[in-house]
Amino acid sequence: MSDKKRDCEAAIGVFDSGVGGLTVAREIMRNLPNERIVYFGDTARLPYGSKSKETIIRFSRQIIRFLRTQDVKAIVIACNTASALALEEVEKELDIPIIGVVKPGARVAAAATVNNLVGVIGTESTIHSHMYRQTIQAINPDITVFGRACPLFVPLVEEGWLKDPVTEEIATRYLKDLLDQGIDTLILGCTHYPLLRSLIRKITGEHVTLVNPAYETAKALERLLEKKGIANPGEKEPGNEPYRFFVSDAADKFKNFANSILPYDVETIQKINIEEY
Amino acid sequence: MSDKKRDCEAAIGVFDSGVGGLTVAREIMRNLPNERIVYFGDTARLPYGSKSKETIIRFSRQIIRFLRTQDVKAIVIACNTASALALEEVEKELDIPIIGVVKPGARVAAAATVNNLVGVIGTESTIHSHMYRQTIQAINPDITVFGRACPLFVPLVEEGWLKDPVTEEIATRYLKDLLDQGIDTLILGCTHYPLLRSLIRKITGEHVTLVNPAYETAKALERLLEKKGIANPGEKEPGNEPYRFFVSDAADKFKNFANSILPYDVETIQKINIEEY
Repeated sequence: MSDKKRDCEAAIGVFDSGVGGLTVAREIMRNLPNERIVYFGDTARLPYGSKSKETIIRFSRQIIRFLRTQDVKAIVIACNTASALALEEVEKELDIPIIGVVKPGARVAAAATVNNLVGVIGTESTIHSHMYRQTIQAINPDITVFGRACPLFVPLVEEGWLKDPVTEEIATRYLKDLLDQGIDTLILGCTHYPLLRSLIRKITGEHVTLVNPAYETAKALERLLEKKGIANPGEKEPGNEPYRFFVSDAADKFKNFANSILPYDVETIQKINIEEY
Repeated sequence: MSDKKRDCEAAIGVFDSGVGGLTVAREIMRNLPNERIVYFGDTARLPYGSKSKETIIRFSRQIIRFLRTQDVKAIVIACNTASALALEEVEKELDIPIIGVVKPGARVAAAATVNNLVGVIGTESTIHSHMYRQTIQAINPDITVFGRACPLFVPLVEEGWLKDPVTEEIATRYLKDLLDQGIDTLILGCTHYPLLRSLIRKITGEHVTLVNPAYETAKALERLLEKKGIANPGEKEPGNEPYRFFVSDAADKFKNFANSILPYDVETIQKINIEEY
């Protein structure tokens, strides 16, 4: 097998602090059906949202070292917090392409807004890092970006209260200031949030464009693989498990969540000790 | 200085996954004013509630190794999850006394119930470990213990929504089944929950006894120090900082929470790399 062929057939490494990044893996499965995926969820150390930049960089380096042992040709940081805090740093250290979820989401939001008023919702770290604001304003400095941390959304999604009146009341409260500012575009800046999309749509109304960075990241990955000439042109090899899942803790709980959102049944999930990498 | 005197003057090591254990530290400060405290909050790896037994034991061993470097005479696991999952294991490996928050809470609940129907609320791990049930039934097998995981309570407390209608609605939903079972005693089985005490009291009514394991643990520690002859009989030495705080991440956020619940101003909080221990 040529090196080139081997490169094309290598997997995409995708990582997140836990299950949230599965919404990104799901978009890659839907939009790039030829690609294999190695997914890592750092369930022993989640959530990343409340942790410092230094810690998130250290965790990301460990995970990338692990993913490299699994023969990956590109890496997707499927976690807004790690994309915001660690991408710039780890990118310099790598000889394979790596993308996060922030830039693809920011680019689409900058293109979508008409009145130049964009809202971003996410974890505390993502919002306080102002990474979406900086990325959007680097594209168009005339855009004003309003951020709002929504720390209850992740546990509400994990409770499964996706269309619950309590979730609607909390979401109404979280979104009020952004809507009062007159935003016409809203970035769902945390990987769990697309699962609240229909509830958020109900609150914002149809005139606000919802941007899902998970989908935009899959499309950006597609363009990147084409550009580098490492997209997998053929079918996935039979007998070679196309999607593999690793976690740092509690594989059973991960499996339940994975099976509730992925379009196929996840059979095995391996637990590894990420601190060894 | 005699060894005995040195022992008495050594500090109490207290640890938790984050800020929650400060409610236990607070009860020790109030009830054992002569004792010094070294507190560690594992803010880089919180929350513990969703993690496996094996992982919690590994984290607890690292933290105990760190606390031993700070000259402690006894250790309090101020975290329900770690008390439930790790105490039995680490206790065997130690030559100083160690207590958790589960047994003191369980003992008081077993003594308080009249109709032998006790409820426990806590994180998923605490509830699924059935540690409160096992501990209570070892004391009195006639007691029936009903558990309920309340995963939204910690983020609600951290939002500061302590008396909010949303919190009341969520708490009403969480407590409904327990109250329908006719419990006359309820254990607040997570260190954050005493901060929701008045809201929970409003829902349960006055006929349900609320057990606060943080308070009961401080009282159990007092008895243990007396029994071992290592209580500090005198005043804390002047010029020697009586309460010291360490975290594994995000010291500023920890400081804000600490200052909102402790009866004095926390000046310095040191950040350490717990994975090195």
